[in-house]
Amino acid sequence: MAEFQSKIRTIEWIDTYSRMADQTKYPDKFEFIDIKTGQEMFDAIKNMVVRGAPAIGIAGAHGVVLYAQELKDKNLSFEEFKKELLNKSDYLVTSRPTAVNLYWAVEKQKEIIKNSTSDIESLIEELRINGKKLELEDIEINKKIGDYGAMVVPKGATILTHCNAGALATVGYGTALGVVRSAFAKDPTIQVFADETRPRQQGARITTLELKMDGIPVTLITDGMCSYFMKKGMINMVVVGADRIAANGDAANKIGTYTVAIAAKYHNIPFYVAAPLSTIDTNIQSGEEIVIEERPHEEVTMINGKNICPEGVNVINPAFDVTPHELITGIITEKGILKPDYKNSIKSAFSAN
Amino acid sequence: MAEFQSKIRTIEWIDTYSRMADQTKYPDKFEFIDIKTGQEMFDAIKNMVVRGAPAIGIAGAHGVVLYAQELKDKNLSFEEFKKELLNKSDYLVTSRPTAVNLYWAVEKQKEIIKNSTSDIESLIEELRINGKKLELEDIEINKKIGDYGAMVVPKGATILTHCNAGALATVGYGTALGVVRSAFAKDPTIQVFADETRPRQQGARITTLELKMDGIPVTLITDGMCSYFMKKGMINMVVVGADRIAANGDAANKIGTYTVAIAAKYHNIPFYVAAPLSTIDTNIQSGEEIVIEERPHEEVTMINGKNICPEGVNVINPAFDVTPHELITGIITEKGILKPDYKNSIKSAFSAN
Repeated sequence: MAEFQSKIRTIEWIDTYSRMADQTKYPDKFEFIDIKTGQEMFDAIKNMVVRGAPAIGIAGAHGVVLYAQELKDKNLSFEEFKKELLNKSDYLVTSRPTAVNLYWAVEKQKEIIKNSTSDIESLIEELRINGKKLELEDIEINKKIGDYGAMVVPKGATILTHCNAGALATVGYGTALGVVRSAFAKDPTIQVFADETRPRQQGARITTLELKMDGIPVTLITDGMCSYFMKKGMINMVVVGADRIAANGDAANKIGTYTVAIAAKYHNIPFYVAAPLSTIDTNIQSGEEIVIEERPHEEVTMINGKNICPEGVNVINPAFDVTPHELITGIITEKGILKPDYKNSIKSAFSAN
Repeated sequence: MAEFQSKIRTIEWIDTYSRMADQTKYPDKFEFIDIKTGQEMFDAIKNMVVRGAPAIGIAGAHGVVLYAQELKDKNLSFEEFKKELLNKSDYLVTSRPTAVNLYWAVEKQKEIIKNSTSDIESLIEELRINGKKLELEDIEINKKIGDYGAMVVPKGATILTHCNAGALATVGYGTALGVVRSAFAKDPTIQVFADETRPRQQGARITTLELKMDGIPVTLITDGMCSYFMKKGMINMVVVGADRIAANGDAANKIGTYTVAIAAKYHNIPFYVAAPLSTIDTNIQSGEEIVIEERPHEEVTMINGKNICPEGVNVINPAFDVTPHELITGIITEKGILKPDYKNSIKSAFSAN
């Protein structure tokens, strides 16, 4: 299979700091920001300088290293150091409550902290190495997701996606857009329709940007238009990412995804979720248990620094919704495409780990 | 039944010109513009200074009077005058091809022109009187639609609407929001959820504005959120307007309406279309025959004067979609609520006319 070479590297550990593409500057600028302290990382995650569940996970792993580097200067005992660092790690996870990858990656670092019996300097080095390892694994996992997903993309397909589960949501290849990249490497006649994805417009600002950077044809549509194009036969499949998947296959993703899934079902169009196994939280039985983050009203009421509605209008702004498993054709993971019954297929994927 | 007193008058004929609320200035300003020539009216319709199918209809009727006033100065014979005025009337209809009310109202004026056997001055006076009559009838029709619709609004309901089919889309009461106004007069515990309605954001800019002006509680949501709130049981019914309805009940309305209708069906939530009989075009058998206007790409790519995506991204921007009759619970008209089978109920409504 031809391998797709993406031009995009979203997050990268360099010596003593984390370098990331600043995702608040799109579409005007594509520039990098260097994050050098734990609190800067907390803020970068909270304010969505870095976004996308897998990229947030790596940011979390890097954040733990940054906290460790700072704590070193405090002259703590090794046990105090470990305790403090575990506290900082737990605090870091609160920056985005819905993204399970953040929890997952920080937990990986916490295990190293808990199990360490050496000294502060060696522990920090171990955390750095593990952060880098998770980072490179993310790209490898994405490529596997892409290659599995490409197998179910019809020849010449138009793929609809919502939000951005791309290179700019991961370390550098993408989950949903990883599928697109791998499919495009095999068949350059495929194309993408990108939902704008209000309120934060990640589809318009980020998905179109990264697909243009990589030379993949993309058409921008507004969120309400999906059914119109589905009915006209202009969309052949939907592939989206996920922020958290329950043990029964229910998938939390950017608000609006559930609406697209219902529309796809109504038109008998396959609806796939592409996500690494780390997105699946087998501790929760169904989507009912997923906490949905509420975000500031200004995301809805202001665009480009200007109000789009009269002052003082009431707003509710849930950041995610849950697509129930019965609307999902398959979950594309690095271990293959999981199919219903998801309770069983998810269990099998984890036991094969 | 308590009658609702709206503060809003969107379009009004005054002596020799048409005064309308300038709908391109929302939500920053609520101000009026006086339209004094036929070409000004053509441009006002085309550029959506006036919008909403019924308001556009009245604007068309007023536009014919404006053209007549101008032609008077040309010293034409009565027959030449009539011929020229019919040409101008046909030109006026091309300003918005999808809105059937524009065609309908201009046709009403054309009948007067064709049947007139008096003189230019008397004909102009007849057209003025007819324009005013259509204008006042629109309010009366809306109030009837509102009162019929209010009968099917559950106590304390939250009503979702898409785009703006309100006082600001009509002469002064609204169709979908006429139902809201009449329901609110009976039961002040009802409230509205307003879809933003990308690309032009009529829900955010106009629906929230007019409901706030009239003191009716409204919450703004983005278009993709509707299913989320439906699943949570927070939406009890959907009421939208229509730009054109076919003889089988298929209804063209603002892009995104069809997606809401599918979501409502999936959650077993009643989905009503509120529209005057003049919106129903019995000459077309189904929605397949409705021409969908494509509008400029900038409506999708720019908001508040700034790009929301990289330069040069491909866009498709259909202004309307068609909701098939099987997704519509009822069509609320001034003659009562039409129910399936719509072919029969529409035929009956017209024969009872």
